[in-house]
Amino acid sequence: MSTDCNVVIVGAGGVGVVSSLSMYHAGKCEVSMVVRSDYDTVVEHGYTIDSCDYGALSGWRPHQVYRDVQEAASSGKFFDYVVITTKNIPDGPRASTMPVLAQPFLESNEKLDPTRLTSIVLIQNGIDIEKELITTLKPEEHNNYVVLSGVEIVGSTKVGKAQIKQVGTDNLSIGAFDPSDKRAVESAKRFAVLYDAGDKNHVEFDERVRYSRWKKLLYNAAINTTTAIVGLDVPRTIEFGHEDNTKNAIFLPAMHDIVNIAASEGIVIEEKFIEFFVNISAKRMFTPSMCVDVQKGQLMELEVILGNPLKIAKQNGVETPTLTFLYNILAIIQNKLKEQNGLLKFDESTCSITD
Amino acid sequence: MSTDCNVVIVGAGGVGVVSSLSMYHAGKCEVSMVVRSDYDTVVEHGYTIDSCDYGALSGWRPHQVYRDVQEAASSGKFFDYVVITTKNIPDGPRASTMPVLAQPFLESNEKLDPTRLTSIVLIQNGIDIEKELITTLKPEEHNNYVVLSGVEIVGSTKVGKAQIKQVGTDNLSIGAFDPSDKRAVESAKRFAVLYDAGDKNHVEFDERVRYSRWKKLLYNAAINTTTAIVGLDVPRTIEFGHEDNTKNAIFLPAMHDIVNIAASEGIVIEEKFIEFFVNISAKRMFTPSMCVDVQKGQLMELEVILGNPLKIAKQNGVETPTLTFLYNILAIIQNKLKEQNGLLKFDESTCSITD
Repeated sequence: MSTDCNVVIVGAGGVGVVSSLSMYHAGKCEVSMVVRSDYDTVVEHGYTIDSCDYGALSGWRPHQVYRDVQEAASSGKFFDYVVITTKNIPDGPRASTMPVLAQPFLESNEKLDPTRLTSIVLIQNGIDIEKELITTLKPEEHNNYVVLSGVEIVGSTKVGKAQIKQVGTDNLSIGAFDPSDKRAVESAKRFAVLYDAGDKNHVEFDERVRYSRWKKLLYNAAINTTTAIVGLDVPRTIEFGHEDNTKNAIFLPAMHDIVNIAASEGIVIEEKFIEFFVNISAKRMFTPSMCVDVQKGQLMELEVILGNPLKIAKQNGVETPTLTFLYNILAIIQNKLKEQNGLLKFDESTCSITD
Repeated sequence: MSTDCNVVIVGAGGVGVVSSLSMYHAGKCEVSMVVRSDYDTVVEHGYTIDSCDYGALSGWRPHQVYRDVQEAASSGKFFDYVVITTKNIPDGPRASTMPVLAQPFLESNEKLDPTRLTSIVLIQNGIDIEKELITTLKPEEHNNYVVLSGVEIVGSTKVGKAQIKQVGTDNLSIGAFDPSDKRAVESAKRFAVLYDAGDKNHVEFDERVRYSRWKKLLYNAAINTTTAIVGLDVPRTIEFGHEDNTKNAIFLPAMHDIVNIAASEGIVIEEKFIEFFVNISAKRMFTPSMCVDVQKGQLMELEVILGNPLKIAKQNGVETPTLTFLYNILAIIQNKLKEQNGLLKFDESTCSITD
């Protein structure tokens, strides 16, 4: 282990733990994790991990574990990479938004070494997920940090307290949100090296981050959303439709809406990916994240998956009938979840939202 | 009580019990009920009813109570009116479909008196609800029975075993599905007299049954459906929408779809009813029937509320983007409910419906 590079992972779910494990296994940096709800269990017993990449692990811990971002940021370490793998829910509790999670690290790093670069790595779904961060914490005022984009495909789930089950090989694309920022591009390339655990995982530097994110939105904006509305895994959502309408009247037109929005900003998503995403979904038992969120009573990543694409569509005058319908329904469900989580109050005597 | 007229009510929910009570109170016919799940309780203790029309009743029973339609049909009575207040779910269990519920009465009546008219009264939501009955049991082959249409507005709910709470005055419109059938029209007028309990309820003969059904569909096809998808009462469904979109992007266009379908068969639904239904809904805490069905895990009246209007739209070449979307989503949810009720099997290993 080399200690000239420190990485902290914020968000200890299925993605965060496998990312930590990959970098720990790669052995090119010191790996710290911010572990909130499972902190005591991880400190006492470590993680229990059943991984297709790393086998059955018991008592695994990263190099350091912190209870929250404040504790990590005041550790005296300069974190070169702050990897955030939490859900990105800008309309959720403020304490979990990207600016609030990143700020303590930007401030402590600046005090420790104002000449050293900090990279914030967002390994999350959606489009324009970096916008809230860089408009709230302007890079020129915070030590010129850069923001990297991670798209991770890994069938990994937290199945219990400090227990992870990983069924699909860890596959990460990493690049710079701003491909014209040479420091960000170099940092992304370096991160790919730090992340590379040989034959255990797959990582690649991604020159076209925004293209990749639009491409992944084909799945998330069309399929993830629909399953969240009906509360079913993908194969049932497809098979339970009337006369193949789930595919033909929801998934395909929703994906074409995404293709049209991407095209309006000059990004060409090839048609073949539409068939690809529909086909890989039909015969594989899988419940996407937004559906799981609804089932667990948690807020969905609605804004980064649908709200932001629809804002771009509106700006560019793109018609999006299917995505708009899905959004209108899911916005109601998101507020239902907010009420369930005490984030919104509804007064039944006046029939209105009171805060 | 006059015994020259016998009425049997099939379906002992909130609507069926209040209808029975109204006719019992009117005192112009003998009132029998088919009470399935609550039979033993009703026989032993009678109904407990908290009614805005009839006060607090304890131990109330109609003149006769039967366990099922077969028992009622073999009672030796000629039932002039067979009033069906069950849900109309043609895609549900066959034993609960209209032809199966009506047939025993048509057969027993024919044996008792082949010259006397039988009227089947469907007090139910939706459009074309009589079609399955008259195409399956052709009137010319079954003693020339007639079918009457009842649209009942009554805030009445079964709140426990043989327990009914009624908060809105019983208001029934009754007419002939086929207004050119003079016997049906006369029978409907007679039923209105039998049903009239003076100042306790309101009943009127309806010359324009199909118009009334389309009008009520404004509410059921747009609002009832949407609440079933999001799982919320009407005020929350409206207020939780993004930028008033529940009203502007779901309810209103869905209602305009209904107006256009009705227009395609020459029925003019006045625009004022659209605003009326949206406004009465916004500030009254109410959870519509399809939403209650989903919450209870019961099948919805999807086909008579949305499927049938959409069939007419297709035949007449009417575009119905909003209703079609609602239907595509609800068809998935209906099959989810069918699986939960053992009416459909899904094989996860092949990802397909097996029956």
